[in-house]
Amino acid sequence: MSNFPLRLPVGSLPNGPRNTITDVPGVQVGHATVDTPRHKTGVTVIMPPQSNPFTHKLVANAHVVNGFGKSVGLMQLQEVGYLETPIALTNTLNVGLVSDAMVEYMVDISQRDGVQVQSINPVVCECNDSELSDIQKRAVNKAHLLSAISRAGADFAQGDVGAGKGTICCGVKGGIGSASRMVTLDGNPYHIGVLVQSNFGSTADLVFCGKHIGPALAARMKEAAAPTDKGSIIIALATDIPLSHRQLGRVLRRCGLGLAHAGSFGGHGSGDIVVGFTTAGPAPTESQLVPTTILNENAIDPVFRAAAEATEEAILHSMLAAGPVTGYRGNTVPALGQFADLLGL
Amino acid sequence: MSNFPLRLPVGSLPNGPRNTITDVPGVQVGHATVDTPRHKTGVTVIMPPQSNPFTHKLVANAHVVNGFGKSVGLMQLQEVGYLETPIALTNTLNVGLVSDAMVEYMVDISQRDGVQVQSINPVVCECNDSELSDIQKRAVNKAHLLSAISRAGADFAQGDVGAGKGTICCGVKGGIGSASRMVTLDGNPYHIGVLVQSNFGSTADLVFCGKHIGPALAARMKEAAAPTDKGSIIIALATDIPLSHRQLGRVLRRCGLGLAHAGSFGGHGSGDIVVGFTTAGPAPTESQLVPTTILNENAIDPVFRAAAEATEEAILHSMLAAGPVTGYRGNTVPALGQFADLLGL
Amino acid sequence: MSNFPLRLPVGSLPNGPRNTITDVPGVQVGHATVDTPRHKTGVTVIMPPQSNPFTHKLVANAHVVNGFGKSVGLMQLQEVGYLETPIALTNTLNVGLVSDAMVEYMVDISQRDGVQVQSINPVVCECNDSELSDIQKRAVNKAHLLSAISRAGADFAQGDVGAGKGTICCGVKGGIGSASRMVTLDGNPYHIGVLVQSNFGSTADLVFCGKHIGPALAARMKEAAAPTDKGSIIIALATDIPLSHRQLGRVLRRCGLGLAHAGSFGGHGSGDIVVGFTTAGPAPTESQLVPTTILNENAIDPVFRAAAEATEEAILHSMLAAGPVTGYRGNTVPALGQFADLLGL
Amino acid sequence: MSNFPLRLPVGSLPNGPRNTITDVPGVQVGHATVDTPRHKTGVTVIMPPQSNPFTHKLVANAHVVNGFGKSVGLMQLQEVGYLETPIALTNTLNVGLVSDAMVEYMVDISQRDGVQVQSINPVVCECNDSELSDIQKRAVNKAHLLSAISRAGADFAQGDVGAGKGTICCGVKGGIGSASRMVTLDGNPYHIGVLVQSNFGSTADLVFCGKHIGPALAARMKEAAAPTDKGSIIIALATDIPLSHRQLGRVLRRCGLGLAHAGSFGGHGSGDIVVGFTTAGPAPTESQLVPTTILNENAIDPVFRAAAEATEEAILHSMLAAGPVTGYRGNTVPALGQFADLLGL
Repeated sequence: MSNFPLRLPVGSLPNGPRNTITDVPGVQVGHATVDTPRHKTGVTVIMPPQSNPFTHKLVANAHVVNGFGKSVGLMQLQEVGYLETPIALTNTLNVGLVSDAMVEYMVDISQRDGVQVQSINPVVCECNDSELSDIQKRAVNKAHLLSAISRAGADFAQGDVGAGKGTICCGVKGGIGSASRMVTLDGNPYHIGVLVQSNFGSTADLVFCGKHIGPALAARMKEAAAPTDKGSIIIALATDIPLSHRQLGRVLRRCGLGLAHAGSFGGHGSGDIVVGFTTAGPAPTESQLVPTTILNENAIDPVFRAAAEATEEAILHSMLAAGPVTGYRGNTVPALGQFADLLGL
Repeated sequence: MSNFPLRLPVGSLPNGPRNTITDVPGVQVGHATVDTPRHKTGVTVIMPPQSNPFTHKLVANAHVVNGFGKSVGLMQLQEVGYLETPIALTNTLNVGLVSDAMVEYMVDISQRDGVQVQSINPVVCECNDSELSDIQKRAVNKAHLLSAISRAGADFAQGDVGAGKGTICCGVKGGIGSASRMVTLDGNPYHIGVLVQSNFGSTADLVFCGKHIGPALAARMKEAAAPTDKGSIIIALATDIPLSHRQLGRVLRRCGLGLAHAGSFGGHGSGDIVVGFTTAGPAPTESQLVPTTILNENAIDPVFRAAAEATEEAILHSMLAAGPVTGYRGNTVPALGQFADLLGL
Repeated sequence: MSNFPLRLPVGSLPNGPRNTITDVPGVQVGHATVDTPRHKTGVTVIMPPQSNPFTHKLVANAHVVNGFGKSVGLMQLQEVGYLETPIALTNTLNVGLVSDAMVEYMVDISQRDGVQVQSINPVVCECNDSELSDIQKRAVNKAHLLSAISRAGADFAQGDVGAGKGTICCGVKGGIGSASRMVTLDGNPYHIGVLVQSNFGSTADLVFCGKHIGPALAARMKEAAAPTDKGSIIIALATDIPLSHRQLGRVLRRCGLGLAHAGSFGGHGSGDIVVGFTTAGPAPTESQLVPTTILNENAIDPVFRAAAEATEEAILHSMLAAGPVTGYRGNTVPALGQFADLLGL
Repeated sequence: MSNFPLRLPVGSLPNGPRNTITDVPGVQVGHATVDTPRHKTGVTVIMPPQSNPFTHKLVANAHVVNGFGKSVGLMQLQEVGYLETPIALTNTLNVGLVSDAMVEYMVDISQRDGVQVQSINPVVCECNDSELSDIQKRAVNKAHLLSAISRAGADFAQGDVGAGKGTICCGVKGGIGSASRMVTLDGNPYHIGVLVQSNFGSTADLVFCGKHIGPALAARMKEAAAPTDKGSIIIALATDIPLSHRQLGRVLRRCGLGLAHAGSFGGHGSGDIVVGFTTAGPAPTESQLVPTTILNENAIDPVFRAAAEATEEAILHSMLAAGPVTGYRGNTVPALGQFADLLGL
């Protein structure tokens, strides 16, 4: 879509200038796409602002909406509460390989910085793109991770790209989508950005900007409609709001509201995972007591709403930005944009 | 409303004959209402089928959507996985007293049955009705619990009654609502019933049967509209489907989807709690290994959908069934039925 | 015991001057004991430093070692992370009544301070003292809570007193015990204090200061020995170390190590609960971003050790300080001090 | 040690005939060891009884004692409650690669069985062996996983072997250890087996069969003693007792007691992870309601004790069975057997 990033009528809070996760200062996104007759898959990375996240860890957390999934690294985010690598997204059966590549990348850049890394917690999440891609062949390799990292920037494509090349959302082409919202705290502007890898939902359940268009869409798609809610969604959130680990966890849980608003029924086989970080934590220090800043909990409601709104809009963006894709068995998944008359935009 | 229980166009699964939680065989509901100029509050009980739930414990679980609340008994439901008392709902500041009354009631009926009870886990949940009721006076007493229990039956009132007498939902009168859904397993019909005590939401967020009527409603209500999502919701689920504790926990989490579909944004100050039980667990036994039945996880998706649909419809019923109520400060909360033209029914 | 608080050879860290939880500046403890032929029970309170904890909330958290218990208030500690009442301990069947009394107390002192309290989260924990006390009669009343609060101070009795009057630990008389440890951070001294209500364990499992004296003790006690690990333990921790909610949660989990070191096997029917708070959080503020201080995670290991050591010693103190108690059925539970030759002190 | 598996005086329950995890019928263990001047590492696998665990899933669960670790696959064990691959142990930085190899192995054997695997949840856990092995080089490759699988049997080596080749426990050589216990239920014998990869603890904290030998050992080891509790432990439990997912989770938590009894203080940087499965769940079926068997919760205490005892003894076995190992920097970690006079065996 040429006019991306557009602002859809989702919620009431203002979006950031790009209406993407990269509205959070310093955050970058990059893709490597595998697009062959046999494979529609890839890697997408979300880069924290720091050149080496291992030496400048960020407050982070994770929330499991539904845990039928293979994402790695969440346990340590929940226990010690910091992110020390980029976040990578890929397909289900390549999580191990991308984790391995991420370890190698982190060892390499840390050696560059004179740091010996003996332990690293890669955060790698996944959706299953086996409808369009021959997933058992595991087409992603280490070079894809490095390529996605090297291409990361504040401007990035959405839709059928990177780890979203082969995913399907509510029966139409899903993929990578992003959106952002802004809130004002103590008179200053702050950003909440979300990026999703969408791969969930039945066609009949799709809700577009509050309109339950799923039944009409299913009628138009006939046999091509997705009858059940399987697949998954990965939701990554970044913010520059100072939040404690607990507060961030509460914010991440509200991303599930945005997912529900778009039509998810939380299918059994869905791995619905939220990971997030704030760029506003304390800097590395040698002192044993560390000054930091957190949010007054009485001011958290707009941040909750921002997370829900940005998630819902990011999901819709992932579908709007995607074109139709034909899989290795000759099956074509249409784009939501082909049904523009249903959208009421 | 005279035509209760009606079936609203919420979801696609069939409802049970009453379209309430008491469609689950043996489950009963009773109310005791405190309705004085100073107090609008009360107690609502959900009775398991057995005459003494302490001697015939049921598989049960709990899920915390947002834990700003004072419900008691959830920890033990999560650890040992059974319910051994009725479930009582009341107002925030009467949880202790109702718990105490529940202990007394259980000791009494157990003595009747020749059982000495040394330990009992009352499950008592709450919403805050302080907008309409002078909550600091804690008007509920032990007799109210006993009265609610004695009046319990398969037919029961909804709306501004019992523990729902003083609650407010999306700026209009909330209260007690219920709905049910049916699913077929191995060729036989099973029931999923939900009862809610609704007290959440901002007016502008209300979604009625998929229609986002909140903004129009807020415009009509002017200053009386609820500007923020505070308050709480208690969601109680019963079923006769054989479910393991883990499976039941997964089902309870889907109640949160129904809550989201009705317009909740999960406000910070909201205690959004789900408790549930199945009547289909094993009978008490002396043997050390116990035969039981669980659900094939591949068949769980319709049960998830049933939980979400029944929750959403129960919320809407709680508002539709309620009349306007005037509080102790002279403030009147209108009924949703006064805005029937917005509902499109 | 006359020489209380003594320091037992438990661990390596230094204790505070009192070797009790009240070494944490401002923290106070009070008891009300019910000691009649029919009842051996009571209430113990742990008072935060502030005169009204509702208007000066403290960072707090909870950890469930084993959730077969009836403690209330934990959910909100985990969600929003602050304590807003004193912590009260009592017997299993009086939790509701003491919660109700705590609400009344908080409403009363808040009205004194000009604050209208519409919602309050009482933290009330319990052990089951039904071996010695006729628990079904629920002998505790509201006056006991108020009495315990009014008597609270930095100096307080241990052993068979307050909520520990009727509890049994490893077959001998348990009750209230306390201990403390000190750690140095950035050159300054800090305190970790623990208070327990001990009611767990089989006699044969008891480990005293690293010596597994249980089998010898069981041989001496003959039929009076406790054959199984039932009962419960409540562990309350206070500190003046600046800790985030997540860090405090990690510290509380280490209290379980001290429990294991004393001989717990985590019996099914045991409610093993840890609650804790730090007095070092941010002061109430109107600003939306709040400066605060947390611990550098690299310095947390001594705090972990302090929590484990203080818990283990507090458990031993609860037994050493207690005298023998005769229950309502004429059964006498001996004191550990009666077997001093086994202790090697 | 020539007399392995010996039975140490740990606890009171009888052990199985091998006193290893393979006392659980059908369970097998295999190792692949990397033993070069530069690397001391490897892979250990625990094989469920079935030839293809993907087509015959087992009830499984996981418990995180301390989540500073990189184990993968736990989330899905907790959500859907079954194991569908062997469990593999390796070093921290090879988790991704071994996960990738496990996916390939499962795809391959499933194709052999005529099953197309689109999604697989490898369970791979780890300890950090970087004191002895040049971990950044990641010496494990796919062939090691296949080799460990192909060598799996009921008889297997303990100590410095497989994934335990380079690990250190309380300053002496740790590694792989195993033990078992038996309980009688309804008159029939059942087995609880544990296998650990031990890599935790400070020397001064070591407790050997209830004797706190750590201080004496530290005195003997001088500078070679481990001053702090870092590293990790992986605890894998197998049983043939019919347990629900919730019950199994409760059993796994008791493994932490055995860890505490051996001297762990739960160091911040320790990844202390428990995974477990029962071979006694329902067979695959097409029906939507599934008959199964669970344990009467009133009979669970001996199972708890078995888990704690087997864990403690498995840890001690891991040290007793290991010889001294010299690392890539020329540092030699002694064997506990070199201090036999301290052990009192």
